[in-house]
Amino acid sequence: MDNQITTKQKTVVISSTGREEREETLAIEEPYKVALNDKEIGASMVLATGLEEFGAGFLFGQGYITEVGQVREVLVCPEGRISVHADVEEGSEPKEVIITSGCGGTGKISREMLEGAFDPLQECTITLDEIGLFIRELVKQSPLGSTTHCVHGCGMWADGRLQGFYEDVGRHNAVDKVIGAILMGKIPAKGAIYTTGRLTSDMVLKCARIGIPIVMSRTSASSLGLAIARRAGVTLVGYARPGRLNVFNAPDRIIC
Amino acid sequence: MDNQITTKQKTVVISSTGREEREETLAIEEPYKVALNDKEIGASMVLATGLEEFGAGFLFGQGYITEVGQVREVLVCPEGRISVHADVEEGSEPKEVIITSGCGGTGKISREMLEGAFDPLQECTITLDEIGLFIRELVKQSPLGSTTHCVHGCGMWADGRLQGFYEDVGRHNAVDKVIGAILMGKIPAKGAIYTTGRLTSDMVLKCARIGIPIVMSRTSASSLGLAIARRAGVTLVGYARPGRLNVFNAPDRIIC
Repeated sequence: MDNQITTKQKTVVISSTGREEREETLAIEEPYKVALNDKEIGASMVLATGLEEFGAGFLFGQGYITEVGQVREVLVCPEGRISVHADVEEGSEPKEVIITSGCGGTGKISREMLEGAFDPLQECTITLDEIGLFIRELVKQSPLGSTTHCVHGCGMWADGRLQGFYEDVGRHNAVDKVIGAILMGKIPAKGAIYTTGRLTSDMVLKCARIGIPIVMSRTSASSLGLAIARRAGVTLVGYARPGRLNVFNAPDRIIC
Repeated sequence: MDNQITTKQKTVVISSTGREEREETLAIEEPYKVALNDKEIGASMVLATGLEEFGAGFLFGQGYITEVGQVREVLVCPEGRISVHADVEEGSEPKEVIITSGCGGTGKISREMLEGAFDPLQECTITLDEIGLFIRELVKQSPLGSTTHCVHGCGMWADGRLQGFYEDVGRHNAVDKVIGAILMGKIPAKGAIYTTGRLTSDMVLKCARIGIPIVMSRTSASSLGLAIARRAGVTLVGYARPGRLNVFNAPDRIIC
């Protein structure tokens, strides 16, 4: 994939000292349709990177794909269509859906997912030092965040190294790309995920459903995000910084 | 309405100097269903403030309600249902929908809305000094933003004063509450709207559709947000601070 993902645009800075022309870098937001086994499921605005992962993660977020091993092939058509082929049962799609508070394509979850039980998580621990390395590594890989101020980043740390990092115009889409990479067998779920976005219910829910035991954010969580973390047993970390974490649930997986 | 919108929760701060208990304030995220003329349209996670306005704005965002004057009555049931009664034609709902990149309940827009023409905006101008007052006034009214770090704020300035200010766990929902207030005749559209969220396509689109001529954000815009502003003739302002603005489109409405 070699898509253009930013564009330079002329803007005017207006201040008490006058008007001045300037050039800003904007993130390119594009609509992509997602199809499962040739049936169109939805469409989402995305940043056109990691589109295969996005397609798989989008379908997981909405409950169409439910586990690792189901995705067989993902094809991306430049006209704006991501075609996922997966071994899923016909008619197994979620019924009653709730549109969620989060940025992103997978802004729909079913009440069943929200209230159902969780499978055991992929157990692991992480040290405070490792988390520091993780966050520093992520910041190095995210120039778009600081140039456009219009994307969220999400990365996965496992086996002592950064396994994957994705960005998107949607807070959710970035997480979906990481989850899609897990579904496609590119990275393990047994580790820690870090997002620049807020941990609302749906963000925590999809991480718990795929089995990630440690979920971290640069910022905070909502009440329902925390409630889901408690029910699933997920370690929930807010305000994550190198050397300092605010742990909302299950701090025992963090070792000093 | 007197809903509880935050909750205090015990957390553990882990740092190189050890572990320390702490109390954090979390925003309460709750699911609410939205019905139009007794037919359920969708459900969304929200912060339970300005729910009547949210109901109206949610239906506008998705194209069910299209103009000021259509909303007759909004009833909020504490069980989690917002019931909007409005003078709209049966079967006029949007067909092909795109899930958008934005936080929030109204994460769906129709392709028709995205590509269609715009009605003229409610023309007005604003001075740099007024914008400074506007932003300072907003910051004063948004304690939740700085305590929970899990909500977005959105306000409307018209006729020389702050006309309304709303917060929500979703970037979109906060804007929807302002637009709902316009639909309900509580505040005018002829002014400037300011959001703490990013100006992606759907955010700019709904402001343009309701006729707001000046759309401002604390942060940036996406390529498609800018493209819509250009098509609609909206003044689009990024990185808005008292005394300094970065104007992406139509700077002539800002007077020094």
